[in-house]
This record gives sequence, structure tokens and C-alpha cells, in this order.
Amino acid sequence: MTNAAQTGVLFGVGLGPGDPELVTMKAVRMIGAARVVAYFAKRGRESHARAIAARYLPQGCEELLLAYPVTTEIPFGDDAYRQALAQFYEESAERLAERLARGDDVALLCEGDPMFYGSFMHLFTRLQSRFRVEICAGVSGMSGCFADAQQPMTWGDDVLTVLPATLPEDALAQRLGASDAAVVMKLGGNFAKLRRALERAGLLDRAIYVERGTMADQRIMKLRDKTDETAPYFAMALVPGNGRRP
Amino acid sequence: MTNAAQTGVLFGVGLGPGDPELVTMKAVRMIGAARVVAYFAKRGRESHARAIAARYLPQGCEELLLAYPVTTEIPFGDDAYRQALAQFYEESAERLAERLARGDDVALLCEGDPMFYGSFMHLFTRLQSRFRVEICAGVSGMSGCFADAQQPMTWGDDVLTVLPATLPEDALAQRLGASDAAVVMKLGGNFAKLRRALERAGLLDRAIYVERGTMADQRIMKLRDKTDETAPYFAMALVPGNGRRP
Repeated sequence: MTNAAQTGVLFGVGLGPGDPELVTMKAVRMIGAARVVAYFAKRGRESHARAIAARYLPQGCEELLLAYPVTTEIPFGDDAYRQALAQFYEESAERLAERLARGDDVALLCEGDPMFYGSFMHLFTRLQSRFRVEICAGVSGMSGCFADAQQPMTWGDDVLTVLPATLPEDALAQRLGASDAAVVMKLGGNFAKLRRALERAGLLDRAIYVERGTMADQRIMKLRDKTDETAPYFAMALVPGNGRRP
Repeated sequence: MTNAAQTGVLFGVGLGPGDPELVTMKAVRMIGAARVVAYFAKRGRESHARAIAARYLPQGCEELLLAYPVTTEIPFGDDAYRQALAQFYEESAERLAERLARGDDVALLCEGDPMFYGSFMHLFTRLQSRFRVEICAGVSGMSGCFADAQQPMTWGDDVLTVLPATLPEDALAQRLGASDAAVVMKLGGNFAKLRRALERAGLLDRAIYVERGTMADQRIMKLRDKTDETAPYFAMALVPGNGRRP
């Protein structure tokens, strides 16, 4: 058994949307002090989180790569998909727990903001009762897009809805129509459906398309001007609010 | 007339929710390089934005205090209130324009994220056609609250609604009930109404109350356990999502 006083601290470190300069002073401090630095990646791909944090990693830290299982041949929503992911998160949590139990602090690197659609949350819920956790908020992906699109998003009493493009078209159209401002995430294969939903809600002319926000190769344009129907999963649509403004 | 090549750049600098360590590396760079640093404050009060940025201000920079007009005796929503604010934003924009026109870069300090309910937007819309603008996204107030409350907010395909507590009780209850996760801002005198709306939506047990998030004197508690009905304007309620999670 490990003495609680000797166990390490799990740091959930938000890194912001992609530009390494959008990392906070607090995140830099947490990363620099960690004995172990952990990060997620798709199997066989570079970890986005590690790439953002690279310049801040301390010399000689142990790096723990948490590589997502390959699930492309399993239909999304399938129980087998869910089980493969659950097992991956269990195993990842245990790899962190091992280091924490022997007294090492572990910094888990998180793209964007850790508690906002973050993979970190899956390990946090599995470890929070056993170890001390400190969380460093990050600039969210959507905030990065607001800034680089130079798009004021919400004014006064505007209601903002954040919704995934994976919703059915009717639900998208209804929710878009009921919001003053909206952010639509996870465009991917849902772009054509989203475009129809925006048109039905009368919002097509207001919508902005942002791909790879804050990164060197970002693309920003009026969504109406995007003529093809393909978009990466991490693209976003912004519908700026139009509220009270003196 | 000023040669466009010689005019300064307006930097809209997001500073995050209050903890000076939650300022980004990019914001620190922008502040450090500015000839003129501008910030809003309530008349007769310390500027929150300046307090967050104090340790990063360059020696000898010119400071421009933009002091809000006193409007407490004018009913909110009144046309006179709107006009007083409009005039204030016009005058503030002109004070910045004067420095920009003579070639000085101006950093306008913004609490939270500049394009998300930010006062910066009122000057941005007045100056963007005349000067080059660069915007640095910041950690939003709500992201700071998610982290310090250690509250995973949105999972998988959760829909998040951000809404002001100033809405009528029926609208609050309806919108809360239709969301997977919610952030309610501007609690102030609306706390009792929000509590009733949460109860009607069946969400009272899930809601978290956060006051002065990420600041030294922050308070975090289950909203149900808050027995008094007073809350500062900048308090927030969080209703964490409960979505798909392997």
C-alpha cells in the first residue's frame, strides 16, 4: 500500500487550440515540473497535444504515449466500439496510477480546455477518488476560432448554443433557429447536412467556416462560399450573435 | 492624414478569468511590446483587467483608463442607459484611434476571452475598418470555473447552452430543460429566479455555484446548498452534462 502523503499529483493541463503561444503560464509551470508527461494520440500518428507542448517539456521527463485503439473497422455507436474505448481508458488510467502511486507527479496534456469535450475527463473520473488532481483551464478550440476569425460572438444577453454536427438535420435546424449565437463542432462528414440545416434556419449568410483554427494552415471563410462538401472532423462553424450593443 | 503603413496595431488581449497565471504566452508578449496599454474599469474602482496583467506591464508604457460612466441611477434597458454607453464607447474608441493614428501599438486588456461577451467587441467594431487588429484568445471565465470546480462539463455529443440569468423564468426553465449541459451567467439579482427555473427543469441537484472563479477568494458549492439569495453579478451556475462516456 502506498502512503497517501507520498502519492503524486495528477495535473490535467489544458494547452489551448493549437498555437504553442496560446499555452498559459500556469500550464508551462505544470509541464516543466512534471516527472512524467502523458498524452493521447491516434495510433501511428503524432500526438497533437505533445506537438503543442514540445517546447515546454523538461529535459529527461518520462513520456507516456496513450495510443487510441484502431476502431475504424468498428461502426461508431456499436457496443464493440464503446467497449474498446472503455478498455483503453481503463488501461491508460492504470498506467498513470502506477506512476502516481510511486510518488511521481504526472502531467496529462490536453488539447483545448480539459473539461470541455476533453479526453482527459475519461481518466479524471477513473482516478479522482484515488489521487489528488489539479486542473489547469485552457483556451478552448472555439475561443481560438473566434479570435482568428475576428468574429465577436456573443453580445449582452445573447444565448450561445454549442452543438455537434452529428445531430440529425431536424434537431440541428431547430436548435440553430432557437439560438442567438451558435458554434457547431465535429463537422467531418456532416458538412452537407449542416449546410442544409443552416439554410433552413435562415443562418447560412451569417455562418463562418473555420478549419484547423489557430494552426499554421488554418482556413477561414464564409461557410456559404465553401463549395465542396468535405471538412475535417476538427473543423467548426460559427454563427455570431447579433444582440444588444450600444 | 496618416500613412496607413505608419499606423499602430490594436491588440485585443484576452487575459483569462482572473488568475494571472492563466494568461497565455502570447498575451504576455503582446502586453510586453505595447507602447500604450488600455483597460476598462468601473468609475472609482480598480480595473480587474489591469490587476490580472499588472506583472506583465512594460516599464514606462502609457496607461489609458477607460472608466465606465456611472449609470446606476438610470434603469437598465432604458434608452438613456444605452445612449450613455454608446457615447462612452465612441469616446473610448477615439482615444485609442488617436494613439493608433500616430503609430503607437495599443494593447487593450480584456478579462476572459475578448470575443465572448467582451467589452473589447464594442471598440473592435468601431475601429476594425480603420486600423489593423490582432486578437489573442483567452481562457474564458466559464473554462476557469469548469477547472476549479473539477467538473467535466460536456461529453461526446452533449449540447451546451450558455445563457444569461437575466432571461425570464419560463425561458430559463425551458432552455435548461432542453440542454445536456448549461452555463448560466450574470446571476446577480437573478439567483432566486434561476433556482426556481433549475428546480422546474429537474436540474437543481446537478447544479454547481461558482463565485469569483479562479480568484483567491473563489467560492464553489452545490447550488442547492446555497441558502441565501444574493450572488454577485459575476457568479456562474454550471449544469454538467451527462452524455455518452465509454
